[in-house]
Amino acid sequence: METPRKARRSGGRAARVAARTAPLEAAKRPVWPGIPGGQYSPLSETEVARVHAAALDALEQIGMAKAPPSGVDILTGAGCALGLDGRIRIPRTLVAEMLEKAAKTVILPARDPQFDIELSGRRVHFGTAGAAVSIVDSQTGAYRDSTTQDLYDAARLVQTLDNVHFFQRPLVCRDAKDNFALDFNTLYASLAGTTKHIGTSFIEAENLDGCLKLIHAVAGGQEAFRARPFVSNTNTFVVPPMTFAEESCQVLEGAVRAGMPVLLLSAGQAGATAPAPLATAVVQAVAEVLAGVVYVNAISPGHPAIFGTWPFVSDLRTGSMSGGSGEQALLTAACAQMHRFYGLPGGAAAGMTDAKLPDMQAGWEQAISNVMAGLAGLNMVYESVGMHASLLGFSMESLVLGNDMLGQVQRCVRGIEVTEENTSIEVMKSVCLDGPGHYLGAEQTLRIMQSEYIYPALANRSSPKEWVEKGRPILLDSARARVREVLAQDGHQFAPDLQAQLEAAFDLIPLKRIHEGL
Amino acid sequence: METPRKARRSGGRAARVAARTAPLEAAKRPVWPGIPGGQYSPLSETEVARVHAAALDALEQIGMAKAPPSGVDILTGAGCALGLDGRIRIPRTLVAEMLEKAAKTVILPARDPQFDIELSGRRVHFGTAGAAVSIVDSQTGAYRDSTTQDLYDAARLVQTLDNVHFFQRPLVCRDAKDNFALDFNTLYASLAGTTKHIGTSFIEAENLDGCLKLIHAVAGGQEAFRARPFVSNTNTFVVPPMTFAEESCQVLEGAVRAGMPVLLLSAGQAGATAPAPLATAVVQAVAEVLAGVVYVNAISPGHPAIFGTWPFVSDLRTGSMSGGSGEQALLTAACAQMHRFYGLPGGAAAGMTDAKLPDMQAGWEQAISNVMAGLAGLNMVYESVGMHASLLGFSMESLVLGNDMLGQVQRCVRGIEVTEENTSIEVMKSVCLDGPGHYLGAEQTLRIMQSEYIYPALANRSSPKEWVEKGRPILLDSARARVREVLAQDGHQFAPDLQAQLEAAFDLIPLKRIHEGL
Repeated sequence: METPRKARRSGGRAARVAARTAPLEAAKRPVWPGIPGGQYSPLSETEVARVHAAALDALEQIGMAKAPPSGVDILTGAGCALGLDGRIRIPRTLVAEMLEKAAKTVILPARDPQFDIELSGRRVHFGTAGAAVSIVDSQTGAYRDSTTQDLYDAARLVQTLDNVHFFQRPLVCRDAKDNFALDFNTLYASLAGTTKHIGTSFIEAENLDGCLKLIHAVAGGQEAFRARPFVSNTNTFVVPPMTFAEESCQVLEGAVRAGMPVLLLSAGQAGATAPAPLATAVVQAVAEVLAGVVYVNAISPGHPAIFGTWPFVSDLRTGSMSGGSGEQALLTAACAQMHRFYGLPGGAAAGMTDAKLPDMQAGWEQAISNVMAGLAGLNMVYESVGMHASLLGFSMESLVLGNDMLGQVQRCVRGIEVTEENTSIEVMKSVCLDGPGHYLGAEQTLRIMQSEYIYPALANRSSPKEWVEKGRPILLDSARARVREVLAQDGHQFAPDLQAQLEAAFDLIPLKRIHEGL
Repeated sequence: METPRKARRSGGRAARVAARTAPLEAAKRPVWPGIPGGQYSPLSETEVARVHAAALDALEQIGMAKAPPSGVDILTGAGCALGLDGRIRIPRTLVAEMLEKAAKTVILPARDPQFDIELSGRRVHFGTAGAAVSIVDSQTGAYRDSTTQDLYDAARLVQTLDNVHFFQRPLVCRDAKDNFALDFNTLYASLAGTTKHIGTSFIEAENLDGCLKLIHAVAGGQEAFRARPFVSNTNTFVVPPMTFAEESCQVLEGAVRAGMPVLLLSAGQAGATAPAPLATAVVQAVAEVLAGVVYVNAISPGHPAIFGTWPFVSDLRTGSMSGGSGEQALLTAACAQMHRFYGLPGGAAAGMTDAKLPDMQAGWEQAISNVMAGLAGLNMVYESVGMHASLLGFSMESLVLGNDMLGQVQRCVRGIEVTEENTSIEVMKSVCLDGPGHYLGAEQTLRIMQSEYIYPALANRSSPKEWVEKGRPILLDSARARVREVLAQDGHQFAPDLQAQLEAAFDLIPLKRIHEGL
């Protein structure tokens, strides 16, 4: 990072140097949260209609198994049929009615309002998510159990990364002593580390009350939270294929009643818990999430919900997951298009890699699915940074490098503006007919260098000569230095009195606020 | 790679293992050369029309400087105006007339017909290209001068890489003693290493005759070559902005008369030799290549030519090139869309990285532009593998890893087929209502595992546990081993008698056919 200096109005290299080092007004940044995508449509209109029709057939003919008793009441009350086989079947007319009622725009507030997210249309946002059980040591290749401290550190890093727009817990706090301590400290570490919007899950419905106490304490009361719910519930309410997750359904009901936005998450795995043909995997995911839309809107019409079709991919040679595959990128992009078809805010997973380390494979696997998700106009791109080994490992270095990757992806999503002004050939004329024969010093070049172009923070663009002169810096070393730099500072996001209040009221896993000599 | 074994008809893991190890018929491969893209359109129809109109304005109002005398005759003979300022101005009616005459389908034959390439519609192909002056040592980070042997080795590797469809020389043979020796041995090393289609350039027009002697000797005569021109001329006939390259124009005329397909290449650099706004950079590139279309079709109507809009990007902070940027990906994708608009076979550059080594940055930078180029339906994606340091360095390890990346990219370009059959919910029904509750052993899963899914050769998909058990293999080590394995074998593509004939007739730089103990 360069130190901001005063821009000068002269041309040439000095002016370029000055221009690049001046801080950018937010409005002139080359990328921003919510850039509209949608220039890429993996499916034709006929194909979208076919997926939709098949999903409706599946809900009518196969239906969903294992709704909890409360869910059976809610769903049959709304017009679903409970079969003798215990399955809830949902008529297409009811789905249509609930799609009408469903929220078309969802705001995900953040504790710091500058990070609020508006989900609508084709607005694209990137963030973390996942349940990695390990931290990857990028130096030794060691995989060790992830902890609450790691989650806090990841949150603190995300707070500093402009191109990561929300923080859903990407890793599991394996040092928590029980399920409640896990849910509770996941929330605590996330909220303590970042003021961006938080997504979290609850293992058991009975954990919700205790966690809401923490949330309300941070919000300054229940009403304050309901007015700006800065925590949403990522809810795997379905265990594919076509089966409700009873416990999570109870969490879902509680979260809706507590005023939390919900992510209705169906995470089937094509070839294992979802059909192997990519098209049918999308059909099943859509059917399952439509069941969730009916469920939520039957409880509370228009409740903020995200259409969370997250079909994953199996490597069919082994049956294990492959998050980094091209098939994964296609599934996610196709789901984004289904969200657009329904006009509902949607989210899916991209940016995962099967690579164990932040290497070249990690780069191409993370990038392909992220850029396709963005170009397809996915509102919420989950898992977009830091996730390795098919979601089993999280890497801090990969997280900070991924911020550069996401900046580039967002630049691509923004696209090329072709206006009357910027297709004017006047500058070409003056350069070619009267001018110097090149555009380097042109006023236009200087004017747009910060708004039209994005510059990476860690990715290296120097020439081989400069690179050798600087001792051939290794990308991962730069990433480690950046991680160290951020974690050596106190980025705690609770004021001292709130922190004291929380420590007095709750059983918190202690967090180290400054890492020295990392 | 697995040894092919006989497939068995039983279900479960054994059958999956058997199915994956059986060799695939070409027709059932998950990806293939010429997969149609075009699902992604970076520009709206209005925007495309605006670019086209501005390019026509530029040709009429600015025109092209410095045509060679022969070119002035050809172009004014066709209806262009030579101004008092020495510039050739091209009326839009003439452009329209020449677009009519231009070849809409171009076949790029290969010495081995199985590698023939058909350029039409949105068919996508990936290959090498460039003029790297260094070879990157991925172990030490050293950049050393590239040689004829390196070019031969790269060609031999490409011969083995399914997802790399053509070979244009990616690096400069810096051991050649003069310009003729350079052009000649570039051709010789390329042809000796691969039977895929070869793209090459000629520094001086007078080199063409001597090089054609080699080409005709390999073809078995001039007529045989004209019937199946397996070498095309990559021709930088323009020095942006809006200026002909006199020497290259003479090469162009010679190549057209020799029956060689030509790549009409405009390689401006936005912010330096092209306008800084991305839209205007596209306008200028389109204008320049349209001038080339007029030129070629004035000599020989319908001559096979590729619309080679290759606008590059400057990092405006330094003025140096950034091939790995998101802006580059956008420029290339926008050009692909202009090719579609004209209905002409087109090519552009993608897959370049600014990274000095095959690291995570290299992965994301190469992948983003390659996948966007493919999804935009670019017929010829040049520079798509192996190019580092903004085109200054070439890496063999990156080349073999890039083959995996390109396989994944091609899988994404292929997209999701949504047919009546694969949206049938019958398999879902049988699994959910009567079956095992998962799809792992389903007949459908086994049937499509090789046609619907692509598996990487070098990218690692093992679990952290397996990976640790295997000693934490490093991706670059696997790539080095693959390079060694290929180069330790004799992959020379000339029969002994042809080789003897060439050695007797020409001054060839000697090539080592087998590397031992690399």
